[in-house]
Amino acid sequence: MLDHWDNIGSHPVMGTVERGYAGDSLFFDEHGVRADLSRIDAYARLLASVGISAIAINNVNVHAREARLLTDDLLDVARVADVLRPWGIRLHLSVSFAAPMLLGGLTTSDPLDEGVRAWWRAATDAVYAAIPDFGGYLVKADSEGQPGPFAYGRDHADGANALAQALAPHGGVVHWRAFVYNHHQDWRDRGTDRARAAYDHFAPLDGRFADNVVLQVKHGPMDFQVREPVSPVLGAMPRTRLALELQVTQEYTGHQRHVCHLEPMWRGVLDFPLPDRPVAELVDDVVAVANVGTDRYWTGHPLAQANLYAFARLAWGAEGDLLEEWLTLTFAGAEPEVVDTVRDLMADSWRTYEHYTAPLGVGFMVAPGHHYGPDVDGYEYSRWGTYHFADRDGIGVDRTVATGTGYAGQYPEPWRSAYESLETCPDELLLFFHHVPYGHRLRSGSTVIQHIYDTHVEGAAETERMQRAWQGVQGRVDDALHERIAERLAEQVRSAAEWRDQIGAYFQRKSGVRDERLPA
Amino acid sequence: MLDHWDNIGSHPVMGTVERGYAGDSLFFDEHGVRADLSRIDAYARLLASVGISAIAINNVNVHAREARLLTDDLLDVARVADVLRPWGIRLHLSVSFAAPMLLGGLTTSDPLDEGVRAWWRAATDAVYAAIPDFGGYLVKADSEGQPGPFAYGRDHADGANALAQALAPHGGVVHWRAFVYNHHQDWRDRGTDRARAAYDHFAPLDGRFADNVVLQVKHGPMDFQVREPVSPVLGAMPRTRLALELQVTQEYTGHQRHVCHLEPMWRGVLDFPLPDRPVAELVDDVVAVANVGTDRYWTGHPLAQANLYAFARLAWGAEGDLLEEWLTLTFAGAEPEVVDTVRDLMADSWRTYEHYTAPLGVGFMVAPGHHYGPDVDGYEYSRWGTYHFADRDGIGVDRTVATGTGYAGQYPEPWRSAYESLETCPDELLLFFHHVPYGHRLRSGSTVIQHIYDTHVEGAAETERMQRAWQGVQGRVDDALHERIAERLAEQVRSAAEWRDQIGAYFQRKSGVRDERLPA
Repeated sequence: MLDHWDNIGSHPVMGTVERGYAGDSLFFDEHGVRADLSRIDAYARLLASVGISAIAINNVNVHAREARLLTDDLLDVARVADVLRPWGIRLHLSVSFAAPMLLGGLTTSDPLDEGVRAWWRAATDAVYAAIPDFGGYLVKADSEGQPGPFAYGRDHADGANALAQALAPHGGVVHWRAFVYNHHQDWRDRGTDRARAAYDHFAPLDGRFADNVVLQVKHGPMDFQVREPVSPVLGAMPRTRLALELQVTQEYTGHQRHVCHLEPMWRGVLDFPLPDRPVAELVDDVVAVANVGTDRYWTGHPLAQANLYAFARLAWGAEGDLLEEWLTLTFAGAEPEVVDTVRDLMADSWRTYEHYTAPLGVGFMVAPGHHYGPDVDGYEYSRWGTYHFADRDGIGVDRTVATGTGYAGQYPEPWRSAYESLETCPDELLLFFHHVPYGHRLRSGSTVIQHIYDTHVEGAAETERMQRAWQGVQGRVDDALHERIAERLAEQVRSAAEWRDQIGAYFQRKSGVRDERLPA
Repeated sequence: MLDHWDNIGSHPVMGTVERGYAGDSLFFDEHGVRADLSRIDAYARLLASVGISAIAINNVNVHAREARLLTDDLLDVARVADVLRPWGIRLHLSVSFAAPMLLGGLTTSDPLDEGVRAWWRAATDAVYAAIPDFGGYLVKADSEGQPGPFAYGRDHADGANALAQALAPHGGVVHWRAFVYNHHQDWRDRGTDRARAAYDHFAPLDGRFADNVVLQVKHGPMDFQVREPVSPVLGAMPRTRLALELQVTQEYTGHQRHVCHLEPMWRGVLDFPLPDRPVAELVDDVVAVANVGTDRYWTGHPLAQANLYAFARLAWGAEGDLLEEWLTLTFAGAEPEVVDTVRDLMADSWRTYEHYTAPLGVGFMVAPGHHYGPDVDGYEYSRWGTYHFADRDGIGVDRTVATGTGYAGQYPEPWRSAYESLETCPDELLLFFHHVPYGHRLRSGSTVIQHIYDTHVEGAAETERMQRAWQGVQGRVDDALHERIAERLAEQVRSAAEWRDQIGAYFQRKSGVRDERLPA
């Protein structure tokens, strides 16, 4: 399923896409569902060509206006379903857990209240009367301000099952997001840990969800950072249908201004043994947040189309080199040197992005709110922090069982021990699991602080090489395409230098350790 | 003159006020000048009662829609002038330096171009035909993205004089803002210094401005921080008409959610000898950015009315206790204990705000963009930085002549030497002029780091005392007024604790020095 974070919009939203970097919503304008659905038809064809079989058309953050899609706007939603149907794509809706109150005028949304359950049944029956092949509901509950079952002293199985019961007679499913975390940490408390939250909330509920509930789990424990460990929830719920949630839209990976080809990261997640079966076998479904909009290239950065392609192919278990497939399909007829240049731009671009942004798995050194560009302390002192815990002596979050938050204990063996020990923890996740002195030696032989300096200098230099390579094919690809990509690369070069400079300055000031490669 | 940063607005602005914390614009809605001017009449009466004689009704950041006030909307502007006139208040307009291009269709705004000068003359003649007592123009040029004379290789005297020439026959004046600074600093360069910019740009131009140009100078060299030294520009331009610009709207001083009575700060500026005459005698005029809007109390926080009052009285050289005056006028008839309580809330509130926010003159530890709440590094690595230069060993910006940016050298003696030397620099400005180790001893005997911890704890505790005091007069003042102030005080208490915690955590981590008052 492809999740769309598309808003209708009362002011100030106006048919935009939350975390969208490719123009406005394909589905909505400020009034509701668009009058002209021809672009949706083209989009459905695009999705069908790569095997995507379901989409949720609206934002998981369901505001009052969006909530009415379920009732007042149902005939308009049915028009969209009619366009998707010939392409074999089922429509889902994000719904508010508080819909019985928002839309039904009830005084409660308690999932065990008989009136609430009756409301959901009646609303769902009406949806199926309008859209016989309706896919089901997507719910973000008790998370980042969205309402949920906690308000009634119920747990998330109670909440999900109430909606599932209404959908079951029609064959529909509930996708219930596991993105729930605690807001009450403060900087004086190293014990609370946002990374623990999904497992702490959901693992105890394994076996309690109805058959038509799919628990939708983000691939890592935090929030779509450029590097995270695989979420331990994926290995902890054998009696629950699970969906793996990826983020195709580049919220934390450069807003589709930066080339960041995510296939290698996603493949690493799907292949990860937890502990003896790969994640791909543990989940029933792979879901992603879409990266498209009304932009003429669909995705803002034309090369970001490859992320949508790779997601769809990986979701169906494709093996082989998906970047090569996409290049062949997209640049059919181009000179081999052009294809080679594009491949070189993209193949290692995820690691390049990692190099010039947050190092060694630490994550979240981004500007708050929009999540673009560096701000080392941007979230560090917020009520959702901390993230890097850098002080004058070291950096990283101790998530061990022995001395830290205990998060490493949420993994089965051998991962629990592998992450627990400084000796065996992989370098690329070192700062996610351990707080170490700046002088700590990595397997590469470099110290942590020198690694930070070096990777940032190298990552930023790599973006300059990418820019020069693209300049070299000018005149040999479509001019408009060349210009769009050139403009994005110029911004990537600027932004990577900003990252390099801020991260370097921040850590030199804090650690007092100079970059040993700088001239004295 | 009272400057209004009011926008008309095309989306997304919609009749708002930039840096306004008291509702929408009194003058504009989304279409232009409001149809109903009755509130403006009441506002003019309010201003006249305290002696304010001129207002600029629109934002100094003149966007395309606002620019048209000068031409297309002139009859509507004249309606506003008609409402102000009976109260003895002259209307001024903020104009875009690029108006000849934006509105006149010319290909240049070069102030020495004859066509440009003719355009300004014709436009100005038209303004006076509609508004015979029109006050003049307010211009923000070459600053924060606004167009200006630099684009044509001209200086600010050339720019200001072109407009002044058009206004002179009618007796109008140009208020030309001196808020111009350089964007090209980066973190590797300790030599560039935003604080130097206004003096560097304007002092060499002394004597070159026309008689009807008033150079409008912010009271400090940065941007309305809670503590800044007095701007050296004010003492450097004896042959130029100067206006002192204050900020009544609480951009950096708590957004009219915090009580922050600014009279003591402003009085300190006006009384400051530079070097042998007080600032009040060096300037022709005192100007401020307004703090009002459509809010029922005019100013959001009811007690922020006193800032508008104090500004107006100080602008006319009032002596005596202006807070007492305002209390007497505002709480006439209240029990003495109520008046005592309000006085206690307000009298030291500026120093309380300083205590729990940025310490010792360092400034700018605010969240970027909206400037509310703490973010120690928020601007520190921006292209406009740096501001505090805190590293693991110390804090503060070296602005001495001997080893720093040389800013201290912009002052005449005795201030130059007083600020240059660590021995004589006042503690409250220490970190504005010097970079010192955390262990540096202040005159109080405390170290810099312990002073930071202590003042933050004490400042936050003081807000709790303020809140309790206000609770004590419930039932003895108007209920709605009590509720509004109580609601604001609750936010001030929350915010002050956030400041205390973030500043404390940041500096403990960075310095490694514990707050000696914390239990071991």
